[in-house]
Amino acid sequence: MSPTATIGLTGDLLVGGGAYRGTHGEIAAVDPRTGRELQPSYGLGGPEDVRRAAELAEAAFDTYRETTPAVRAGFLTAIADGLDALGDELIARVTAETGIPAARVTGELARTTNQLRLFADVVRDGGWLGARIDPALPERTPLPRPDIRRRLVPVGPVAVFSASNFPLAFSVAGGDTASALAAGAPVIVKAHSSHPGTSELVGRVIQRAVADHGLPEGVFSLLFGTGREVGIALVTDPRIKAVGFTGSRSGGLALVAAAQARPEPIPVYAEMSSVNPVIVLPAALRGRGAEIGRALVASMTVGQGQLCTSPGLVFAVDGPGVAEFVAAAAEALRAVPAAPMLSAGIQQAFAEGVERLRSATGVEIAAAGEAGDGIAAPGQAHLFRTTNAELRDNPALQEEVFGASSLIVTVNSADELRDTVAGLEGQLTLTLHADDADLEVARALLPLLERKAGRIVVNGWPTGVEVGHAMVHGGPFPATSDSRTTSVGTAAIERFLRPVAYQNLPAGLLPAGLDDGR
Amino acid sequence: MSPTATIGLTGDLLVGGGAYRGTHGEIAAVDPRTGRELQPSYGLGGPEDVRRAAELAEAAFDTYRETTPAVRAGFLTAIADGLDALGDELIARVTAETGIPAARVTGELARTTNQLRLFADVVRDGGWLGARIDPALPERTPLPRPDIRRRLVPVGPVAVFSASNFPLAFSVAGGDTASALAAGAPVIVKAHSSHPGTSELVGRVIQRAVADHGLPEGVFSLLFGTGREVGIALVTDPRIKAVGFTGSRSGGLALVAAAQARPEPIPVYAEMSSVNPVIVLPAALRGRGAEIGRALVASMTVGQGQLCTSPGLVFAVDGPGVAEFVAAAAEALRAVPAAPMLSAGIQQAFAEGVERLRSATGVEIAAAGEAGDGIAAPGQAHLFRTTNAELRDNPALQEEVFGASSLIVTVNSADELRDTVAGLEGQLTLTLHADDADLEVARALLPLLERKAGRIVVNGWPTGVEVGHAMVHGGPFPATSDSRTTSVGTAAIERFLRPVAYQNLPAGLLPAGLDDGR
Repeated sequence: MSPTATIGLTGDLLVGGGAYRGTHGEIAAVDPRTGRELQPSYGLGGPEDVRRAAELAEAAFDTYRETTPAVRAGFLTAIADGLDALGDELIARVTAETGIPAARVTGELARTTNQLRLFADVVRDGGWLGARIDPALPERTPLPRPDIRRRLVPVGPVAVFSASNFPLAFSVAGGDTASALAAGAPVIVKAHSSHPGTSELVGRVIQRAVADHGLPEGVFSLLFGTGREVGIALVTDPRIKAVGFTGSRSGGLALVAAAQARPEPIPVYAEMSSVNPVIVLPAALRGRGAEIGRALVASMTVGQGQLCTSPGLVFAVDGPGVAEFVAAAAEALRAVPAAPMLSAGIQQAFAEGVERLRSATGVEIAAAGEAGDGIAAPGQAHLFRTTNAELRDNPALQEEVFGASSLIVTVNSADELRDTVAGLEGQLTLTLHADDADLEVARALLPLLERKAGRIVVNGWPTGVEVGHAMVHGGPFPATSDSRTTSVGTAAIERFLRPVAYQNLPAGLLPAGLDDGR
Repeated sequence: MSPTATIGLTGDLLVGGGAYRGTHGEIAAVDPRTGRELQPSYGLGGPEDVRRAAELAEAAFDTYRETTPAVRAGFLTAIADGLDALGDELIARVTAETGIPAARVTGELARTTNQLRLFADVVRDGGWLGARIDPALPERTPLPRPDIRRRLVPVGPVAVFSASNFPLAFSVAGGDTASALAAGAPVIVKAHSSHPGTSELVGRVIQRAVADHGLPEGVFSLLFGTGREVGIALVTDPRIKAVGFTGSRSGGLALVAAAQARPEPIPVYAEMSSVNPVIVLPAALRGRGAEIGRALVASMTVGQGQLCTSPGLVFAVDGPGVAEFVAAAAEALRAVPAAPMLSAGIQQAFAEGVERLRSATGVEIAAAGEAGDGIAAPGQAHLFRTTNAELRDNPALQEEVFGASSLIVTVNSADELRDTVAGLEGQLTLTLHADDADLEVARALLPLLERKAGRIVVNGWPTGVEVGHAMVHGGPFPATSDSRTTSVGTAAIERFLRPVAYQNLPAGLLPAGLDDGR
């Protein structure tokens, strides 16, 4: 029996409070462990479904954005509670659709519900409102100053595109949705086609929370669709005022282009691609090269390397310890068991990326993990090695290979390292391994690292993104389409807000948060 | 004798600490009161000058951005002091180049230097740093939390395009420059060609302040150029990371397109066009129609209507008081003396805009001001009148006519008003005139106004933009290219900053503002 049978999945689009089957073709999830299709199939939406969801979102906006902090926080908490209540049924469906082991899904579910509750706290705290008051100065010369008060208001309905690799934390009730709902923006999610059942389960929890809290139905809709038809229709709908996206560079850039070509361009927050370079400095190599090598493999194989922050490029300054570093990494990697990747499509793209590196001039394989015979979509980990000179001649070696693949680059000197880092594209993260004797070199590199990445890690690993107040999951283009923001952590709410000033409003007109009384 | 002779204007480009004549043609300012050319002529820059300025800015960036708050605040204050010290010589040159009366220029100079000093306070205060610290939780289960700290860092060198209408407050040392320098970003200004002497005077003050404070010379450069060659070269230079612009919609959109087409797209903060609609509700009309009419004329003719916030569109709900409102406005307008506009080009565009309204179907002239015989570039104020039905049929009537022109639109009912406001483009400001009996209608309109404008004014006028903490001089497209920001007030600094997170940095590497000790 399919694990979904007990929880009544229907394969419907969830548009406002309703549910109905899309008529633009259908898809079914595939269990990547076995290659077998999962029930039910999902009817896909089209432009008319986007329009309907957008109309409802627009109609909901003015009511939803003025809900009290208590109501909105209660709503977010109810979504978290609903997901926790699904528990094992949800976890089983995620595992069936993505091959992610139940233990990891359990962690991701906790992260997702903690994130929703954290945004509930943010809403209650009220700092997100950005309230500023410049009181009137009627006696000022030469001219009196009027009373001016400012707050941030939500931009309007937001479109969210789910990611394949975090079916909970970056999907239907993930960070983009949580931060947009916290900001007071209705959300229309385009589900990722590789985990539609998970999406429906989560979507129904949100839909129920909307109803239970007496909110207008258009606060949330969930659409299924393949290709770019539904996505482009969403981004170009005039009622949509911002977009959150996590996925490929080509997908992100297509949405950015569509958003810019609108009569009224809108912001797109696309988190696209990053190889998360790791730099191992000489003293660290000398002192603990082998240890760093083993830790690299542990980081690059988390989630089969299918993380935005997976370390895909490692620079080691040539000298004592490099051989031990590479040998230990290679040894550790050879013992890595293959596991199913998220989908056959991702597995194929990974295999092509590995083949590109394998056949590149001057690149050698340091090690490969177990092959994974008998798994439908196995991800075989790969570790490659090259020199800085080769990397300079072939910038394509910098391109992300989504999966457990990493390229170790030996660099001749710290000076050469500096030039190489200066030539890198923008990244989500940059990591330094540095011992005390490396600190001077590290200090000199730091301003450059700040210009290239949204997060700098020292003596740790980029995988594992904390959901807190100080987190920046962002970075210069092409890591994201907007380096001024983060898609993880409480500051993510700022993406969906804009400031409005109110000049000389009588008390009866002043909006909540700016009136003297409350 | 030319007023410039005593203060040694040279007509040079100011590139870093140097000054030399551009070789791509030349321009001279023209006194719009007389049509006479002013000395000296200015040699125009080209792509090689942009490259040189950008190289210097890039070289200056890492040093400048880590200057202490005291140094940076002292630098901003020194610019303000230097401008104040120029005093009458500066004011005379501004008046000669723009026709703006000395009394107004005096006010604009005070606003400009106050703005620089306000940003010095902002820098000292440190809130702009956006510091957030999530301390390590080594005992947390299942995984310990690392130490994560965040701060905002400047995006990199910034290009600023001066405006014609505020030769001080929105020009070389205006709000864009002040906020970018406060953020720690080097600035390259493209001067506006209609006030090059003013630009050189201000530029030399900044150049001297850079030297006096021991800052790298590339912190500031000033370029002259016509057409779009220098502008596009600036926006597409890979070292430039953000753009501030105040000017026309076509000019702003061209810069946005160029910035988006870069290999690494960058943000453009373009403040472009707005007709700043004013809505007069029934009770206000009934009670004080004539008074509002006279006040409208006072607002629309400030600075000959050459303000971004000039009220160009007025909606009046038909009924008691409308006739008095229009009659009083017309009477006041007929008495408005003509004065020189900023330049012959602006005067010609104004005349064309007036002609477009005059010849539009269903639009009648309510009144015209004095013609201004004997002035080289006279701006003759115009008040037009039409109905909501005509406006609906001809959306071009909403387009900005830069200068003292305003169109009164009578609307049949508050419901009709709502639909009309919903159809407006994004605006810098929206203004309501409302008496007590109007408050219910006003309250119902407010959410719509918030979606259409960056600032909402009640029973006042949009002209007069306070430089404070709560000001929002921004608004939805096409008022600006980025509704999430303001170009006036202390929040303008946020445009030139982006967040960076630091994970587990040892004390010796933590940047200023995030270390525990300081």
